[in-house]
Amino acid sequence: MSGLTAIYFTGIGSLMALCFAAYNFIRTKKEDTGNERMTKISGLIGRGANAYLKRQYRGVSMFFIALFVILCIMAACHLLSWFTPFAFITGGVFSGLSGFIGMRTATMANCRTTNAASKSLNKGLRVAFSAGSVMGFTVVGLGLLDLTIWYFILNFAFRNLAMNARLVQITSNMLTFGMGASSMALFARVGGGIFTKAADVGADLVGKVEAGIPEDDPRNPAVIADNVGDNVGDVAGMGADLYESYVGSIISTAALAVAADYGLKGVAVPMVIAALGVLCSIIGTFLIKTKEGASQKNLLKALRTGTYTSSILIIIASFFAIKFLLPDHMGVYIAILSGLLAGVLIGASTEYFTSDTYQPTRKLAESAETGAGTVIISGLSLGMMSTVVPVVIVGISVLVSYYASSHGGDFAQGLYGVGVSAVGMLSTLGITLATDAYGPIADNAGGIAEMAGLKPEVRDRTDALDSLGNTTAATGKGFAIGSAALTALALIVSYIDRIHSLDKSFTFNLAVNNPIVLVGLFVGGMLPFLFAALTMSAVGKAAEAIVIEVRRQFKEIKGLLLGKAEPDYERCVDMCTRSAQKLMIAPALIAVIIPVVFGMITGPDGVVAMLAGNTVTGFVLAIMMSNAGGAWDNAKKYIEAGHHGGKGSQQHRAAVVGDTVGDPFKDTSGPSINILIKLASMVSIVFAQLILTIHLL
Amino acid sequence: MSGLTAIYFTGIGSLMALCFAAYNFIRTKKEDTGNERMTKISGLIGRGANAYLKRQYRGVSMFFIALFVILCIMAACHLLSWFTPFAFITGGVFSGLSGFIGMRTATMANCRTTNAASKSLNKGLRVAFSAGSVMGFTVVGLGLLDLTIWYFILNFAFRNLAMNARLVQITSNMLTFGMGASSMALFARVGGGIFTKAADVGADLVGKVEAGIPEDDPRNPAVIADNVGDNVGDVAGMGADLYESYVGSIISTAALAVAADYGLKGVAVPMVIAALGVLCSIIGTFLIKTKEGASQKNLLKALRTGTYTSSILIIIASFFAIKFLLPDHMGVYIAILSGLLAGVLIGASTEYFTSDTYQPTRKLAESAETGAGTVIISGLSLGMMSTVVPVVIVGISVLVSYYASSHGGDFAQGLYGVGVSAVGMLSTLGITLATDAYGPIADNAGGIAEMAGLKPEVRDRTDALDSLGNTTAATGKGFAIGSAALTALALIVSYIDRIHSLDKSFTFNLAVNNPIVLVGLFVGGMLPFLFAALTMSAVGKAAEAIVIEVRRQFKEIKGLLLGKAEPDYERCVDMCTRSAQKLMIAPALIAVIIPVVFGMITGPDGVVAMLAGNTVTGFVLAIMMSNAGGAWDNAKKYIEAGHHGGKGSQQHRAAVVGDTVGDPFKDTSGPSINILIKLASMVSIVFAQLILTIHLL
Repeated sequence: MSGLTAIYFTGIGSLMALCFAAYNFIRTKKEDTGNERMTKISGLIGRGANAYLKRQYRGVSMFFIALFVILCIMAACHLLSWFTPFAFITGGVFSGLSGFIGMRTATMANCRTTNAASKSLNKGLRVAFSAGSVMGFTVVGLGLLDLTIWYFILNFAFRNLAMNARLVQITSNMLTFGMGASSMALFARVGGGIFTKAADVGADLVGKVEAGIPEDDPRNPAVIADNVGDNVGDVAGMGADLYESYVGSIISTAALAVAADYGLKGVAVPMVIAALGVLCSIIGTFLIKTKEGASQKNLLKALRTGTYTSSILIIIASFFAIKFLLPDHMGVYIAILSGLLAGVLIGASTEYFTSDTYQPTRKLAESAETGAGTVIISGLSLGMMSTVVPVVIVGISVLVSYYASSHGGDFAQGLYGVGVSAVGMLSTLGITLATDAYGPIADNAGGIAEMAGLKPEVRDRTDALDSLGNTTAATGKGFAIGSAALTALALIVSYIDRIHSLDKSFTFNLAVNNPIVLVGLFVGGMLPFLFAALTMSAVGKAAEAIVIEVRRQFKEIKGLLLGKAEPDYERCVDMCTRSAQKLMIAPALIAVIIPVVFGMITGPDGVVAMLAGNTVTGFVLAIMMSNAGGAWDNAKKYIEAGHHGGKGSQQHRAAVVGDTVGDPFKDTSGPSINILIKLASMVSIVFAQLILTIHLL
Repeated sequence: MSGLTAIYFTGIGSLMALCFAAYNFIRTKKEDTGNERMTKISGLIGRGANAYLKRQYRGVSMFFIALFVILCIMAACHLLSWFTPFAFITGGVFSGLSGFIGMRTATMANCRTTNAASKSLNKGLRVAFSAGSVMGFTVVGLGLLDLTIWYFILNFAFRNLAMNARLVQITSNMLTFGMGASSMALFARVGGGIFTKAADVGADLVGKVEAGIPEDDPRNPAVIADNVGDNVGDVAGMGADLYESYVGSIISTAALAVAADYGLKGVAVPMVIAALGVLCSIIGTFLIKTKEGASQKNLLKALRTGTYTSSILIIIASFFAIKFLLPDHMGVYIAILSGLLAGVLIGASTEYFTSDTYQPTRKLAESAETGAGTVIISGLSLGMMSTVVPVVIVGISVLVSYYASSHGGDFAQGLYGVGVSAVGMLSTLGITLATDAYGPIADNAGGIAEMAGLKPEVRDRTDALDSLGNTTAATGKGFAIGSAALTALALIVSYIDRIHSLDKSFTFNLAVNNPIVLVGLFVGGMLPFLFAALTMSAVGKAAEAIVIEVRRQFKEIKGLLLGKAEPDYERCVDMCTRSAQKLMIAPALIAVIIPVVFGMITGPDGVVAMLAGNTVTGFVLAIMMSNAGGAWDNAKKYIEAGHHGGKGSQQHRAAVVGDTVGDPFKDTSGPSINILIKLASMVSIVFAQLILTIHLL
């Protein structure tokens, strides 16, 4: 297979994914929407989500326009190529589009899932999973499409350059659209995360705790906002996030291929693996079949059959891909295996620490016996403890990928292997994301069942789907977190290459006993803490406003609590939207501004160290926050299922405090940190010339 | 001044400090112990603390004997000098002794402080501060004594070597007693921290929350354990901790002096600065005078006059010290200034984030309006936010010290400057520790006042002293945290020097894009999280046992709650002791074992990276935990003082949850992490030859 054929193959993979997404979309749309009340509620949620995304994209476009202008000025000053500003914009647009399509599908599918679940658990799963597949395959399809298009544009534009010089131009420009995608993802995750958790916390604190009405009760003014939040945060945010991870891992690896002297074929490897992954994922989804009347356990088995088969298929397929493209470097294949295995193991560790079928979460639930204080202490300690296994796995995976791919100690080839392992981890994203995305759809479906006053068994079924989604999502999260660390490492190396390609005479002094490097490590290590502080306090502030508003409506709207009057849902949606828009600015800006400013002061040595410190602390903190949050959530559910006093008991109240803290941990700060560590690297790469010029002044 | 004269001068400084400590001890002892009930309670506390320390030293001695044997075997295999095992033991003994003397003084002084406070606030302050001074000056006196003695022993033993080779031997053996001191400090901090917080949390949860009896009520079976905890954790733990910081900063700097080619005079500089610091601190304490009937504000002013005067005096004195010892390197003087200034600024930042006179803690108290969940989110976010300023200060301080001391870019000289800045920061430890240590004494005095049923105004006065202590302690904490980061950096460089001195042909590859270095950074970055997880869950487990025991006593001892029967205080003390002994083992061992095992696998490159990752994450996490804990404590006190609903309100209960979480944060995990990061470095240095030998196999 020649390199160019391989790139064409990527284009085909992209189209396959998009067609499969469209097929699933149409199939979902054909389903019945249920009764009038269900359709009405679904419409309310859809309109809220739409309004939010519109406002978000409007706000974010200011940021994009500003950065576009800055990049154009830099291009005019010959600090960048003229393609950079445009690549940046397309990355943002495609990332946003992934989120938007996922969200539209989810809001279309929620009442359909409710309706299907009112017939059987299995039918509910089919509709929700089908909708989740739209999102999964849209993300990978758009990602590969963007890659293919830009490859051909840049290949044409730089056709006069020799192959290697041309590939340098192609990959470095592609990194810019990675920066666009990451910026959009950060806004989507942070903004969506603030929205969803503010609504959730606000609805819970006043509705459940103070007024004593059940979750998703239609009398609660924040209930629609809560359901909108699931769509804008968990669906649209996650879509943009994983688009960024997927594309980021591919382009950072492609960039390393040039340094590793693998030429066009090396650039093609990550793309081909990704395209093969699409095919394997599609086959996997067809295996997810269950008999009517299947139990929850059988459903889980069916989902697992699908994802594991996809993984096995990609293991086989990528062997041939490497065999054809880099036959003398089969070590790269080991890197793919190690990446896939690492992803699965991190997922298993996540599940062990956060699922209520294992000791840690059960012990956490038990600690509720001695009150909220011990719940928090135990949860934080569980989260911190859960960082050990992923760190060890990533460490081993880095070493294995590096030494397997590095022929006789070639540095660049070894690091290319590390990049490829991240691509391997994310290759079956189509199906893993589908199993991840259907969870929030089921969650929404449950909300609609509650609000439309359907029979309790419908709610029980959607709850079963939701909790199934939590389990399968653990694997997806493992892949997202693990690939973030590996991609971030590949990006750091790309940064070093970039500086070398800009100024051949520049010599790095990256030894950790160089004071600039030490300071860089400290500043980089502090960034995720600052970022988490800002995002958490944003949730706190936004939630407080909702609490006050819900209290006001309970007091001022007469007959509301008796069910005789309708609350003003839209006001809550609007308030969440506005808070999220305002409060997402500061955390997003630090990811962009600090790397540039710090780089201007300390130069490239400091930047590399800062990126390394940021990656290390960010990785550990993200795992800790995600897992602690997941465990608190499930510990609460475990108690609600009748253990340790059950719903409404003293212990339950203590567990709810844990869950409240866990919400911003797992849905706002934790996942955003993954984006932060990559965005900081990409910003540094794009602004490399500027930093170098100013530093050398 | 010759180098040798300077070392003699250090010996004199040591004796001065010890005499001044003895003088204060005698003066405190002369005070009246108050009425019979007070004496009895103080006796109970003293006996409990004694019993605890005895058991702790017995347990720890097992560890010391085991390591002593290992070190002897290594010495027999020529992997170490024969002095090393003995130096290790003396470090441990002296560190333990510092804690023991401090604790004995504190338990002797508590009822005397109560009695003095029953006369006036000013008298109370004098007794408590005088007892605190015993601890402060014992720590510095014993530290300098140990240094001087070992200097002369080693100087005599290696008298046949040329001066530079001799100094290499002297300083590398001295680092071993640093390891002994750090090991003891870690046990003292972790064990004491578990004890004190288990007792505190246990007493609060059942006594205050469930039974509704006030704090320090004699009917609470855990009340004596709680007061014992203040002595074994806050006093003995802190004594051992700061002994380790003080000695560690001096010897790591002395070790760098050899690499920087400064010879004996360079080795003498940190010792002389420390000895001058003793003198300046003594002068400072004499300035702490207040008029009878002074307000709390005046007392604070008096304390500040003392500490600031000491700082100004050491600024003047160290100028002459450098002028005489290293006249051609006055840049080192700038390093001292930058260290002192950094310490003061970090202290100020700590105070800003944790004192209820500023916005952050007040806003934290306000967040109690919306419940325990938001209190936790806001507190964590406050703690994370508070890491920014110290990181920036330490970063600037490192760069200033480095560039001021490095003549024309000499690496070793620059890093010597970084070490000296840590010594500068800690030079006035005598007085800053005195202002830190009197807080727990006042706390205990308040407990006695309550239990002995004295007039409420006595308790009010001791509370005022305690809260005054919290404010002055902020500065002390700033010095401890800042110096830990700088000392850890100096130790990393000492490790590199040590490897070079063992194997001249070894070439480091410390670039952060080396995969071994990356993995080292990840593993090192994860260690503080693992450590914090273990220590926090230890507190949780131990507290749970106390909760159950206190509940049992309330139920089984008839008439207890009516005040007609005495609780079984000793059982609670005994349980805390046993839990602390058992649960401190795991966290302490990881600090010793992981560096050695990881080093054997990855070799020196990995070790350096691991130490760097550990220092960065540890520094940030320690600040976050200490400050969040401090802020929660003060937010609760702020509410108790009548804001936001006051004592017993819904908001107060929410704030108590924050305080419960904050207890292990600020008194167990946070301060222990400071020791962890230095101990890991020292262990690596001592086991360097072993690691090198095995790695090269």
